[in-house]
Amino acid sequence: METLSLDQYSFVGNAFSFGLAVMASTTLFLWLMRSSVAPGYRMAITITGLVTAIAAYHYLQIMLSWDKAVDVTSGELAATGEPFNQAYRYVDWLLTVPLLLVELILVMKLSQDETWNRAIKLGGAAALMIVLGYPGEVAEGAGTRFLFWILSMIPFIYILYQLVVGLKESIEKQPDNVKQLIHYATYLVIASWAFYPIVYLLPLLGITGGSAIVAVEVGYTIADIVAKAVFGLVIFTIAVRKSAAEGYKTATES
Amino acid sequence: METLSLDQYSFVGNAFSFGLAVMASTTLFLWLMRSSVAPGYRMAITITGLVTAIAAYHYLQIMLSWDKAVDVTSGELAATGEPFNQAYRYVDWLLTVPLLLVELILVMKLSQDETWNRAIKLGGAAALMIVLGYPGEVAEGAGTRFLFWILSMIPFIYILYQLVVGLKESIEKQPDNVKQLIHYATYLVIASWAFYPIVYLLPLLGITGGSAIVAVEVGYTIADIVAKAVFGLVIFTIAVRKSAAEGYKTATES
Repeated sequence: METLSLDQYSFVGNAFSFGLAVMASTTLFLWLMRSSVAPGYRMAITITGLVTAIAAYHYLQIMLSWDKAVDVTSGELAATGEPFNQAYRYVDWLLTVPLLLVELILVMKLSQDETWNRAIKLGGAAALMIVLGYPGEVAEGAGTRFLFWILSMIPFIYILYQLVVGLKESIEKQPDNVKQLIHYATYLVIASWAFYPIVYLLPLLGITGGSAIVAVEVGYTIADIVAKAVFGLVIFTIAVRKSAAEGYKTATES
Repeated sequence: METLSLDQYSFVGNAFSFGLAVMASTTLFLWLMRSSVAPGYRMAITITGLVTAIAAYHYLQIMLSWDKAVDVTSGELAATGEPFNQAYRYVDWLLTVPLLLVELILVMKLSQDETWNRAIKLGGAAALMIVLGYPGEVAEGAGTRFLFWILSMIPFIYILYQLVVGLKESIEKQPDNVKQLIHYATYLVIASWAFYPIVYLLPLLGITGGSAIVAVEVGYTIADIVAKAVFGLVIFTIAVRKSAAEGYKTATES
């Protein structure tokens, strides 16, 4: 932490505060607008808001931990000795990443059997991916870090395969006015998730120091915002359009 | 507390934060989704959410107490002298354990007389079990601890007997599409509750030190999550299925 300049330290703190504000406001928007989707989509919207609510809580914790790790005295940073708690990100992902995939499954409104089946497979793989990533994140050695990166990539690739190939048939059966949006939602997952394994490897590439910390923390924050808040608003739009197509009067009409 | 390493201390703190996040998000989910069950099941869902809400509050208190008990300076732990408050768990259980059993009774929708009768017997026994456990938890001597363990086991065994034998006939009268789930809910109570009396005895077996503290605190947290959040979602699923079977349009249909 002492390799950071005061400007860098403040910039990261502001990014965390921005993340908190975006997650909390997305949650409020989704829950306040919940009645504008047909009852059949309300569980999807409830869980979408839950994902951003859980993320908002963890950004608050991350922001407080960042604050407590450093004392600023006359423009100089001094570590307080209390470590910045990276684990909040993992605790957050362990809950939100499976739920993100459940959102996508729910808004597609598949048969009850297919919903359960896909939710358990995708959600389980997502939880496994996070659990396998954590030992490498906290390990001292580069070898251990790389080993757990490889292990964690196995469920990651399985999820990507399921999203691109496994869901193909079900996506084709979706109404025309949302098919493109659902494709877009899966690309959004894939694009934002691609960021995480790259960042994870940075320390192995010898990228350390102040700029690396800024890149990692701000990068994770942007990826989280895309994967949770932007993705959540796409899910909301899909639910609104499908509700309208099914004859439900939405809040955008009078 | 000084027998803990920094990693162990952080891990337990993260487990408490995870517990708080799980309990709070389960509460929000249950209350937001309350209208997706028939009016006859809404009290069950309200109380199910209340249990996780009370647990969320106590996990916040436990987390803050854990934080205040130790100062971390340059990677070393130093006790602040303020003891970690174990009593929050007992205060929590005193409220939530009777309510958990009431949830189960309410979702079965028995006759009014049977509901009252069973709720008072099971809820009363649960409260008695917690009250009898506490003097042993705070006692210095091993003899006192063991004595109150025995006393507390009497209502515990009575509750297990009631769940397995007493409720048998009422469970058999439940609709076919939920009978298995209700059995599953009672097993979940029995399996998760079995953890508590075992942990209670650990100090008598001479199991102490850092790893024992981690095992106890993380173990209690997992048992609480299973007994309250996972159990709560099973209760919710039972209520949704029974509502649907009774002709109520649920949130998973349009």
